[in-house]
Amino acid sequence: FTSTRDPTSPNTCPSMSVATKLSRHLLVSRCSSYSSSRLMSNTTTYNCTALNVTKAAPYVFNVELNRPNKMNAINKAMWEEVGDVFNKLDRDQECRVVILSAAGKMFSSGIDLSDLSQLASIVYSEDDIARKSMIMYQNIRHLQDLFTTIEKCKKPVIGCVHSACVGAGVDLITTTDIRMCTMDAWFCVKEVDMGLAADVGTLQRLPKVIGSQSLVSDLCLTARRMESQEAERCGLVSSVFQTKEEMMSAAVDMATMIAAKSPVAVQGTKLNLVYSREHSVEEGLDEVAKWNMTMLQSEDLMKSAMAAMDKSNTEPPEFAEF
Amino acid sequence: FTSTRDPTSPNTCPSMSVATKLSRHLLVSRCSSYSSSRLMSNTTTYNCTALNVTKAAPYVFNVELNRPNKMNAINKAMWEEVGDVFNKLDRDQECRVVILSAAGKMFSSGIDLSDLSQLASIVYSEDDIARKSMIMYQNIRHLQDLFTTIEKCKKPVIGCVHSACVGAGVDLITTTDIRMCTMDAWFCVKEVDMGLAADVGTLQRLPKVIGSQSLVSDLCLTARRMESQEAERCGLVSSVFQTKEEMMSAAVDMATMIAAKSPVAVQGTKLNLVYSREHSVEEGLDEVAKWNMTMLQSEDLMKSAMAAMDKSNTEPPEFAEF
Amino acid sequence: FTSTRDPTSPNTCPSMSVATKLSRHLLVSRCSSYSSSRLMSNTTTYNCTALNVTKAAPYVFNVELNRPNKMNAINKAMWEEVGDVFNKLDRDQECRVVILSAAGKMFSSGIDLSDLSQLASIVYSEDDIARKSMIMYQNIRHLQDLFTTIEKCKKPVIGCVHSACVGAGVDLITTTDIRMCTMDAWFCVKEVDMGLAADVGTLQRLPKVIGSQSLVSDLCLTARRMESQEAERCGLVSSVFQTKEEMMSAAVDMATMIAAKSPVAVQGTKLNLVYSREHSVEEGLDEVAKWNMTMLQSEDLMKSAMAAMDKSNTEPPEFAEF
Amino acid sequence: FTSTRDPTSPNTCPSMSVATKLSRHLLVSRCSSYSSSRLMSNTTTYNCTALNVTKAAPYVFNVELNRPNKMNAINKAMWEEVGDVFNKLDRDQECRVVILSAAGKMFSSGIDLSDLSQLASIVYSEDDIARKSMIMYQNIRHLQDLFTTIEKCKKPVIGCVHSACVGAGVDLITTTDIRMCTMDAWFCVKEVDMGLAADVGTLQRLPKVIGSQSLVSDLCLTARRMESQEAERCGLVSSVFQTKEEMMSAAVDMATMIAAKSPVAVQGTKLNLVYSREHSVEEGLDEVAKWNMTMLQSEDLMKSAMAAMDKSNTEPPEFAEF
Amino acid sequence: FTSTRDPTSPNTCPSMSVATKLSRHLLVSRCSSYSSSRLMSNTTTYNCTALNVTKAAPYVFNVELNRPNKMNAINKAMWEEVGDVFNKLDRDQECRVVILSAAGKMFSSGIDLSDLSQLASIVYSEDDIARKSMIMYQNIRHLQDLFTTIEKCKKPVIGCVHSACVGAGVDLITTTDIRMCTMDAWFCVKEVDMGLAADVGTLQRLPKVIGSQSLVSDLCLTARRMESQEAERCGLVSSVFQTKEEMMSAAVDMATMIAAKSPVAVQGTKLNLVYSREHSVEEGLDEVAKWNMTMLQSEDLMKSAMAAMDKSNTEPPEFAEF
Amino acid sequence: FTSTRDPTSPNTCPSMSVATKLSRHLLVSRCSSYSSSRLMSNTTTYNCTALNVTKAAPYVFNVELNRPNKMNAINKAMWEEVGDVFNKLDRDQECRVVILSAAGKMFSSGIDLSDLSQLASIVYSEDDIARKSMIMYQNIRHLQDLFTTIEKCKKPVIGCVHSACVGAGVDLITTTDIRMCTMDAWFCVKEVDMGLAADVGTLQRLPKVIGSQSLVSDLCLTARRMESQEAERCGLVSSVFQTKEEMMSAAVDMATMIAAKSPVAVQGTKLNLVYSREHSVEEGLDEVAKWNMTMLQSEDLMKSAMAAMDKSNTEPPEFAEF
Repeated sequence: FTSTRDPTSPNTCPSMSVATKLSRHLLVSRCSSYSSSRLMSNTTTYNCTALNVTKAAPYVFNVELNRPNKMNAINKAMWEEVGDVFNKLDRDQECRVVILSAAGKMFSSGIDLSDLSQLASIVYSEDDIARKSMIMYQNIRHLQDLFTTIEKCKKPVIGCVHSACVGAGVDLITTTDIRMCTMDAWFCVKEVDMGLAADVGTLQRLPKVIGSQSLVSDLCLTARRMESQEAERCGLVSSVFQTKEEMMSAAVDMATMIAAKSPVAVQGTKLNLVYSREHSVEEGLDEVAKWNMTMLQSEDLMKSAMAAMDKSNTEPPEFAEF
Repeated sequence: FTSTRDPTSPNTCPSMSVATKLSRHLLVSRCSSYSSSRLMSNTTTYNCTALNVTKAAPYVFNVELNRPNKMNAINKAMWEEVGDVFNKLDRDQECRVVILSAAGKMFSSGIDLSDLSQLASIVYSEDDIARKSMIMYQNIRHLQDLFTTIEKCKKPVIGCVHSACVGAGVDLITTTDIRMCTMDAWFCVKEVDMGLAADVGTLQRLPKVIGSQSLVSDLCLTARRMESQEAERCGLVSSVFQTKEEMMSAAVDMATMIAAKSPVAVQGTKLNLVYSREHSVEEGLDEVAKWNMTMLQSEDLMKSAMAAMDKSNTEPPEFAEF
Repeated sequence: FTSTRDPTSPNTCPSMSVATKLSRHLLVSRCSSYSSSRLMSNTTTYNCTALNVTKAAPYVFNVELNRPNKMNAINKAMWEEVGDVFNKLDRDQECRVVILSAAGKMFSSGIDLSDLSQLASIVYSEDDIARKSMIMYQNIRHLQDLFTTIEKCKKPVIGCVHSACVGAGVDLITTTDIRMCTMDAWFCVKEVDMGLAADVGTLQRLPKVIGSQSLVSDLCLTARRMESQEAERCGLVSSVFQTKEEMMSAAVDMATMIAAKSPVAVQGTKLNLVYSREHSVEEGLDEVAKWNMTMLQSEDLMKSAMAAMDKSNTEPPEFAEF
Repeated sequence: FTSTRDPTSPNTCPSMSVATKLSRHLLVSRCSSYSSSRLMSNTTTYNCTALNVTKAAPYVFNVELNRPNKMNAINKAMWEEVGDVFNKLDRDQECRVVILSAAGKMFSSGIDLSDLSQLASIVYSEDDIARKSMIMYQNIRHLQDLFTTIEKCKKPVIGCVHSACVGAGVDLITTTDIRMCTMDAWFCVKEVDMGLAADVGTLQRLPKVIGSQSLVSDLCLTARRMESQEAERCGLVSSVFQTKEEMMSAAVDMATMIAAKSPVAVQGTKLNLVYSREHSVEEGLDEVAKWNMTMLQSEDLMKSAMAAMDKSNTEPPEFAEF
Repeated sequence: FTSTRDPTSPNTCPSMSVATKLSRHLLVSRCSSYSSSRLMSNTTTYNCTALNVTKAAPYVFNVELNRPNKMNAINKAMWEEVGDVFNKLDRDQECRVVILSAAGKMFSSGIDLSDLSQLASIVYSEDDIARKSMIMYQNIRHLQDLFTTIEKCKKPVIGCVHSACVGAGVDLITTTDIRMCTMDAWFCVKEVDMGLAADVGTLQRLPKVIGSQSLVSDLCLTARRMESQEAERCGLVSSVFQTKEEMMSAAVDMATMIAAKSPVAVQGTKLNLVYSREHSVEEGLDEVAKWNMTMLQSEDLMKSAMAAMDKSNTEPPEFAEF
Repeated sequence: FTSTRDPTSPNTCPSMSVATKLSRHLLVSRCSSYSSSRLMSNTTTYNCTALNVTKAAPYVFNVELNRPNKMNAINKAMWEEVGDVFNKLDRDQECRVVILSAAGKMFSSGIDLSDLSQLASIVYSEDDIARKSMIMYQNIRHLQDLFTTIEKCKKPVIGCVHSACVGAGVDLITTTDIRMCTMDAWFCVKEVDMGLAADVGTLQRLPKVIGSQSLVSDLCLTARRMESQEAERCGLVSSVFQTKEEMMSAAVDMATMIAAKSPVAVQGTKLNLVYSREHSVEEGLDEVAKWNMTMLQSEDLMKSAMAAMDKSNTEPPEFAEF
């Protein structure tokens, strides 16, 4: 899939002066860090096999877990693609909101067990425990980092769960910003039944995602199923839908609504919410003041304010890419 | 409005010896920091225009947003008065509990848009970005500090919301200790529609106030309305009332009940709850131990314990000012 | 009560070589820290009077508050026994899960008031405030530490509340991992009525246990009763039962289910949940990676994975003691 | 003393358009927070009695402790003036660097003992320990805050010590950025001899100012004298001079050199050094990146870079006020 | 050795009323936490074999490493005794300052190698890596905790090193407050040569004890010797003496000087210095204010202040035990 | 340059069973994260132009700044290569210690000024300040991350400075573990003269590297030269040599000595020193205990201990790669 930018979009800036183009050209040619940290090209290619990346609406991307015949078990390839795709989406200016969902009968059955059994080969491939533990450590950290790209992606991510969401599937959705699910969805922190403490995010993020620590411990220690209604009641998801179609339609609507807002405002909101989760109120206040001392000078503020005050106009303002 | 202390109150201490009075006089006359950090006089004056400060019950103050014709839009004057009034209430010994509510048809429509449009003049008044950003930073920090006076006020603050509570109104109520609302109340984190990340408290405090991070992101990224029932379910408010009258009556009852308790206990509870929010359990335990190594020696403990044990007496004990 | 290990248990390791026994013997005889930090003997003695310690199921212990004639008021003896018993349970390899409940008509009426009134003697026993405050500080820290042994116990603790749970009773149950209660249960953070800020855990742990900070402030500042249904709604407990019998039966079932899982997985889960509560996500991820770089090499992982894959076998795997 | 800005200074901007002036006027008249957080007027008045504030060179202010007949003992008035003066200097655009020194025979003999003995009146003015401790707490915090204004002042402060620097004098100089002293200078953390743990900054800042924790403990626990050479060796001061004249001359030279640099660069450096002292390297790196994402766009960068590259020009560039 | 309190000491309080004695008696008999956290009896017994505990001067104790024939190698017994002795000294009111030195030809050759080789038996005594790692973890934490008792002891500890101070000997002395050594002393962070990262304190405390991180890395990575003069230059020790006799004499003098000061002031100073090491300046300031809001009301302050003002009196004031 | 592993090295393990080889093969082919996080191949290629990477001794690599004709000015290419090379060295098992030095007449003149002037093109390439600030932020973070790879490299890095070390050169060397320099070396924190606060590491790391905060402020605010002797005295470097040859020879000797030690011990030491710099002692102790619960079971410990006890053997033990 390739996101091609519509040249007729009102955001393009045909009057951009030759001088500006030139300096931009200089910038790009000089500055490999720049080009590696922000994609200027209008076409970003998402070549995936375990994931399926499509454009669901203008500025809205849909990332689907795409191993339906394997119950969307998360294997090595899918894990690497999650890291790669969300890294690209973070920098793709065509993207302002992401929907994360799954193809097939369920969201995900969790880690691919063949991966788990291959752990044994690591254990036996080295004789010395220091060496094998170091390999293990680096593997775990690497898998963690791949999922964390979702949290670090500046664009909001809406998680959409249907049917089973098990083990690493739960680790995965706790990295999203907003979660919704279908009536038939259920969640299971399975790891303790596999003989391990969950180590790619659930134990860290779930207690900050849902309000009741008693329930978190219950779920993580018993590995029991939690049905959609309990998931809504405890705040793991913020809405439940009858069917997958209704859920996806609501997700696209929400994503479209967010995508129509100033990307400076939206991304600033996500970044500051993630920052606040782990800092004191005082530190969070100073952080947002440092952010806004610049961002309040953006043209987006004026565009938004004028749109809000001009009640006769129902069209949302157009914002430049960010 | 002026809070005048009733001289017949049993808390006054007519037998205070001449020596004590003298040393107190010396203290006050010498110690400007003292008098600036604690008001000894019985009459504190609250001259406000954007707020209305009244005494709702003994030891209970009511602070009302008071620009009903402007939908209680929070302008510069109201902002400054919030800082000034809660600074004074923190030190006014006549005050033990505060109720924060609003006059007129709604709680607040948020920041006064004329203030927002004036931001433009800052942006254009300086040529250099370093200079204009620094002005912006100092302005944001100043507005943040004014709202934070509510959190720093040692007296518990009960927030009472009716009808609309929008934008800066939400920033405002997240600083209160206990929140209640009417059936017709609704809340809206409006800032993202104004083209900015909320920067006077909502992004920092809301995730620590309500349990579901999915819902917090939903509210802050979509700027959608949340009705009173959802607000109660998610824990933003702890009770909902049919009418504003019922709510205010319940608030006064709750405030009166709290005001009848030992101020040493009540203020220690608030201070330690705020401290605990941002520290580990171990640090919080040490903090409260340092606090109570002194406070458990207060006469309030004995008075309270005796009252609790003496079942025949239904009168609450009288506590000295604190 | 004495926990005697069944010699026919399949976990015993009759083939343990003489060499291993010898080195283990050397280890134990040499290493007093070892024996003090982990109990090798098969019989740990729990001699209590204020508590009652029994074995509810294989690997499941039940600790009961046992002053039914005193409304399970928590006196000095009970406090010390809590510290002593949970220290031992932490190291007793016969124990994998603990149920904390109470004998008699209610869970607990809170601190024994005779203890509170004795505080006066400390206040008057020293003339200098520095000295008496230091005594007070050390007493509070000591009582805090005794309750914290429950949180530090690596084995999950399930709190079971029936009828009244007041004051120090609330401090006590906030240290457990999972809480359940009966329909007739009610909770009351009583301390503010005693003239003090709660100082043995409630103000620190309750805001991290339940999702609504407005409700936490309400409970702690008003000292009002919260009934079982509100407790469930706000997440303080994760389930409510009609009778104490049903609750205890469900608790034993849950404990038995957890006890059948790998203790490496279960204890790793508890330890990492407690760690995550007070650290950033990034720090928590690194912590669990350091833990699992070793623990994933345990035989428990293979045993669990094989059991999970072998659908024909309904028996849970047997895990060695940990 | 009044700092009057020279209208012939090349920094003034006579071509400032009428429009700019107008919008600035609007800004000032509207925005009381602005005017309170940044002084626009060209004349700031420093009316002091315990301090003496003079202009030592363009953009360089000298704040002198000025109770020479009282050995510059720090009394209530001096304390309040320190807070007031450094608050003003922080905002006075005429000021870019501050020198803190003392008039008369020594730097300071420490807290005025008459203040200390007045503490007794507080102790005896209240009967209840909770109340008197709260007064004490607020007094200490207030005095701490007054000294902390020096650290919060964005302009670098050079501390110049001659002869005795005792007790609160040491608390005072640890808040400065760079310290120098005369050969005859000596330092003494006197508080332990007064029967108290130092509580206005030495115990907090000294360990972060000098490299040897053994020496810090030695000085604070023994209250012994440290002569100038040991002070230089351990890093408390960074240079020692034969006479006070030489020291003051060197201080003015250093201050003048710093004052000639871009104030955006200088203040950014101070702010980030203070931030780094108390944060991890990673947090400090992110902080300075947030700061510089804006500040690198300042005209000061280009002015400085051009001046650095133009070797023929020996004049420093002129920077606008900040 | 037994510390017997001199009944003629002016600190005893013969006029202590019968009522006070009675309430103290009640207190002691009731309050086991109290008696376990503070030793009321006048005679504390220090039965040691690997250490030698003597009284060097009034209120000054000397703890000597006492395995001179084994080069004071630190074996299990010595480790346990360090924990036990400093726990007791913390509570022994006869003790106000501690000197830590060593008998025989050197300070310490480090961990007893026979202990190290016994580690092998742990490694081989369990088959499963999870189980053996957990044993190892608990052992390391236990040894760490034993050394940390020195840091937690409220009484200042002066470390006196002569000749070799190697490996665990360095871990040991970094826990002391003030360090001194003889000319012939040398230090060696030996662990890296034993194939391990030092794990009982050096890697944690040394970087906070000496100023140059380059030197810390050099010492820890190369395991090279550092002679006394470099130790003084870098701040590891604060003074160097020709002979052990001179050092011990100076240590006793310093200890005696500190012991003559108010124990409220001295212990408050140590506690706040340790706290400040690991907290921000702002947190440290609030901590000391909470401490002093009580401690400034102590009689010690008045005694000290009067003694300081009464120049005719050369006798230090007598302070009550603390 | 290509590091080729000597097949006759005693560390190779010819008896590695076929089964082990097979499972290792499976592991490598399966596990892209593994191969990306640890280089199994014996030949790592370091293709650099701005740097020069050579092997200075067995297991010792020398990374040279290699733009001698440009005064080793740090341009974009050099910056990227630093990140790339140290990432590879971190995983190259042929490398155990790194020496960082410079070719030509000086260490480095700092950032390449042509890079700095190109910043202007970024400033003018975007119209909206939010967009240009975001580009700036990402650029700074990227440059910071490239230098931080040195700190994250598990192998110790020895910095060797001769002649000028200016601006970004100082940022660079503060990331190394041990620093040494020649007599003619000098250091200059130049950024403030360029109109900016240093933003790639100096303001964050220098205060944690040298002991005197007064000196750090002096250097960063005045941009003055610091000569080699002052650098040694303040702890920035730990030794000074007459000539570059002597320095390089000493560096290779030190590196060789470190490289001969257990890599488990050496890397564990570096990792824990870096961790300790930013955590409390208690957190650091727990971290090293978690590390060593595994690492003490390594064969390296036994090899080292036996070598240390066998005085007849002067050969260092051979350690497997890590």
